Amino acid sequence: MKHVAIALLGCGTVGKGVVDLLSRNGQLIEEQLETHISIKRILIRDLPKYEQMDLPDTIALTTDFNDIINDDEIEIVVEVMGSADFAKECIEQCFKRGKSVVSANKDLIADYGIPLLKLSQENNVDFQFEASVAGGIPVIRPMYSSLNSNRIERIIGIMNGTTNYILTNMTERGLSYETALKEAQEKGYAEADPTNDVSGYDAARKIAILATLGFHSAVTFRDVSVEGIEKITHEDIEHASEMGYAVKLLAIAQQNDDGISLNVHPAFIPRSHPLANVGGAYNAVYVRGNCVGDVMFYGQGAGAFPTASAVVSDVMNVILHFNLTVTGKRKYVWHDTKLTDPRSIRAPYYLRMIVDNAPGVLSSISGIFAENRISIRSLIQKDETKEIAEIVILIDASADGLVRDSLKKVTSLSCVRRVANAIRVIEI
Amino acid sequence: MKHVAIALLGCGTVGKGVVDLLSRNGQLIEEQLETHISIKRILIRDLPKYEQMDLPDTIALTTDFNDIINDDEIEIVVEVMGSADFAKECIEQCFKRGKSVVSANKDLIADYGIPLLKLSQENNVDFQFEASVAGGIPVIRPMYSSLNSNRIERIIGIMNGTTNYILTNMTERGLSYETALKEAQEKGYAEADPTNDVSGYDAARKIAILATLGFHSAVTFRDVSVEGIEKITHEDIEHASEMGYAVKLLAIAQQNDDGISLNVHPAFIPRSHPLANVGGAYNAVYVRGNCVGDVMFYGQGAGAFPTASAVVSDVMNVILHFNLTVTGKRKYVWHDTKLTDPRSIRAPYYLRMIVDNAPGVLSSISGIFAENRISIRSLIQKDETKEIAEIVILIDASADGLVRDSLKKVTSLSCVRRVANAIRVIEI
Ligand SMILES: NC(=O)c1ccc[n+]([C@@H]2O[C@H](COP(=O)([O-])OP(=O)(O)OC[C@H]3O[C@@H](n4cnc5c(N)ncnc54)[C@H](OP(=O)(O)O)[C@@H]3O)[C@@H](O)[C@H]2O)c1
Ligand SMILES: NC(=O)c1ccc[n+]([C@@H]2O[C@H](COP(=O)([O-])OP(=O)(O)OC[C@H]3O[C@@H](n4cnc5c(N)ncnc54)[C@H](OP(=O)(O)O)[C@@H]3O)[C@@H](O)[C@H]2O)c1
Repeated sequence: MKHVAIALLGCGTVGKGVVDLLSRNGQLIEEQLETHISIKRILIRDLPKYEQMDLPDTIALTTDFNDIINDDEIEIVVEVMGSADFAKECIEQCFKRGKSVVSANKDLIADYGIPLLKLSQENNVDFQFEASVAGGIPVIRPMYSSLNSNRIERIIGIMNGTTNYILTNMTERGLSYETALKEAQEKGYAEADPTNDVSGYDAARKIAILATLGFHSAVTFRDVSVEGIEKITHEDIEHASEMGYAVKLLAIAQQNDDGISLNVHPAFIPRSHPLANVGGAYNAVYVRGNCVGDVMFYGQGAGAFPTASAVVSDVMNVILHFNLTVTGKRKYVWHDTKLTDPRSIRAPYYLRMIVDNAPGVLSSISGIFAENRISIRSLIQKDETKEIAEIVILIDASADGLVRDSLKKVTSLSCVRRVANAIRVIEI
Repeated sequence: MKHVAIALLGCGTVGKGVVDLLSRNGQLIEEQLETHISIKRILIRDLPKYEQMDLPDTIALTTDFNDIINDDEIEIVVEVMGSADFAKECIEQCFKRGKSVVSANKDLIADYGIPLLKLSQENNVDFQFEASVAGGIPVIRPMYSSLNSNRIERIIGIMNGTTNYILTNMTERGLSYETALKEAQEKGYAEADPTNDVSGYDAARKIAILATLGFHSAVTFRDVSVEGIEKITHEDIEHASEMGYAVKLLAIAQQNDDGISLNVHPAFIPRSHPLANVGGAYNAVYVRGNCVGDVMFYGQGAGAFPTASAVVSDVMNVILHFNLTVTGKRKYVWHDTKLTDPRSIRAPYYLRMIVDNAPGVLSSISGIFAENRISIRSLIQKDETKEIAEIVILIDASADGLVRDSLKKVTSLSCVRRVANAIRVIEI
């Protein structure tokens, strides 16, 4: 039996998951690879903390990365630490020392994926990161090895468990945003500081990674226009339900005539669409290929075992490449990338505003939309009090910039107290 | 630029799709492979028919397989004819002559997949068949190259477009089985002789292929217990809806303590389950891994372009293997397989029976279930006429054999006119 020694950098949720998965499914994995995998070393920071952990005796804990990089027996390094700068440095050193790397680090890959892939190729090693997008769901490898006969036209993902948990529970149980967020934190879905999730940055990193591979476009996290779910209220969710929509935080990468667009924002999706039914902590990635049509990948986007499933499958692929002596041979193609101006992207919008309950208000507001040639599909006014009314407007597909400009003008009307929300409607 | 010549056997829906896809996406494919693919020859039976087809001039049509097998320039043969015996013979000859094969032929692969894979390995060539299951949806390759770190515990597929079209339209538009089937035929989903689809044989072939790869078990089509949708009536669908279920034809492969079971049958699934929302001609495969949890693959299970997408992606994989000189190197593992007795598989059941509208009937029927220790979860009696009543019973999870035996006894009661249907309830 052949034998491959690997090291882990980090032993938190995912790292411990990898240890446990290999002990649970080791025999099955060995049989497929005709190779035994052993975890030889794990890098951590705090020895006493991890000495108490239930880890096999055969694993040596270390706080010194040199113990790993200088160990020639270690052929694969699994980076599951999550920090950006230090992780990058470690991975670069691994490549230079001929070690292949598997990483789950979306923050790093969304920023430095392409330079790292190039460095791995220069050093003839493998670099794989299936777990960085949508946790356990196979999506990166299916995209490049099964949908590769297609021009990928669009990718829509629900890829953040925290926000999906919040929105699902606001919808199904009528919770307020604040209560749903607090519950997500108590249940361990959301971090103490939830900004990264609720503001859409986490989803933005994942869509940047998918677009890089699916569109063959060298984009990064910074190319994504991002809007979070913080402004979504119970009222918005209720209006959506009444109109037959679900509210989801979507990450959308799209090929347009003049370039590609990358967006993260909340959206109304028709209730009958498969994405509308992706609930709780589940993730889904919906891909349109020019020949295959619409394909969806669905499953658990986080958690120790699901994420470890993707990490270990990457390790298995690296080992298959060792055994076939084709390590570092994967070719990547990247085209020049032009980004579409986000303001030019068209969608129908749901608009909710709080106004004075007085005659003439509707005509002032609709006048502004008419001036900008934005056509109104429906308009409902609900009296809140004698003085205040709520107006809900659905407008036909219009350019984002035009909608924003019109809303600025609407806001400046003296009869308009505030524009509470403007949410895109995705008609798929 | 490298160059690979391929041949097609057959030029129907899928074959023409492959021709069209290669002309549509040829450049994108070339760029990824650094290899140009040309279709050199196509085998057909009826020259005049195909000479009228809009095919590139560079393709030579032939009615003689020897023209293909003896052409050493042809390295890959794409079998999209669909017949079983002749296709098998052709594929075997290809292997022996060192040609790799891509096939979409589920009938053949469900019966002879393993001997063919073995023959391909003996001859150091590739044999790929992604399109044989669920058309364009990537499922075979993700299963063995992304979920391979898992013990696959269960596979549930909605993999037949015709039956799903019929059941969806019976549900959504209240059509009768006969009308829905006729419409499916008119729209080209169902064949003139729909037996293969509506009786569940098509789905059975696909689940046999998936179980072979997912469970590492050498099973064939003949190991599947099959039940079709012919007996489903509008009444069953209505009762299902009232109870919060959708009716779907499911293909289920399951690892049990004492072996594996392979079943195709209609089933009630909770409306909130992702599989319940797979409508019309869409397919989905729902896989449970022991670490990844539940994962679903969804998309179009048939059609020229979706199916060609899978076929061409297989061709691309074969060419990547050529370029890396690893052709025919894939290892397969198959374990000894024990099949679970289908009669021992437990599920809750929905039962519908037509009985005399008379006192004592309910107690006679429930007495038989009590004798067999089958517990009744709910029972609803609806008077149809003064003489006849309909009884709908939900029973708790019980062994299939016991349910069948009890129903035999129920049928023999003089007050029971007939047992109209017995449908499993899948609680996932
Ligand atoms: N959790 C998921 O479900 C999930 C899903 C997909 C992807 N990921 C990604 O996987 C990675 C790991 O996530 P996680 O949830 O496992 O994080 P985690 O539970 O916080 O674990 C991180 C581990 O890395 C160690 N570590 C951090 N910085 C280190 C350093 N400078 N030197 C040595 N050790 C260091 C930590 O040690 P200490 O105990 O000293 O902090 C801890 O053992 C992240 O990139 C994350 O984005 C996670
Ligand atoms: N259609 C789909 O959406 C789909 C999806 C997944 C998998 N598949 C599978 O793909 C395969 C092809 O399906 P299809 O829908 O393309 O079938 P099709 O439209 O009936 O085409 C079959 C082609 O093969 C030719 N052919 C049949 N037997 C032949 C023989 N003995 N010698 C030479 N040529 C022969 C036919 O020629 P004639 O014109 O002379 O009959 C026709 O060109 C089948 O195995 C099917 O199960 C199809």
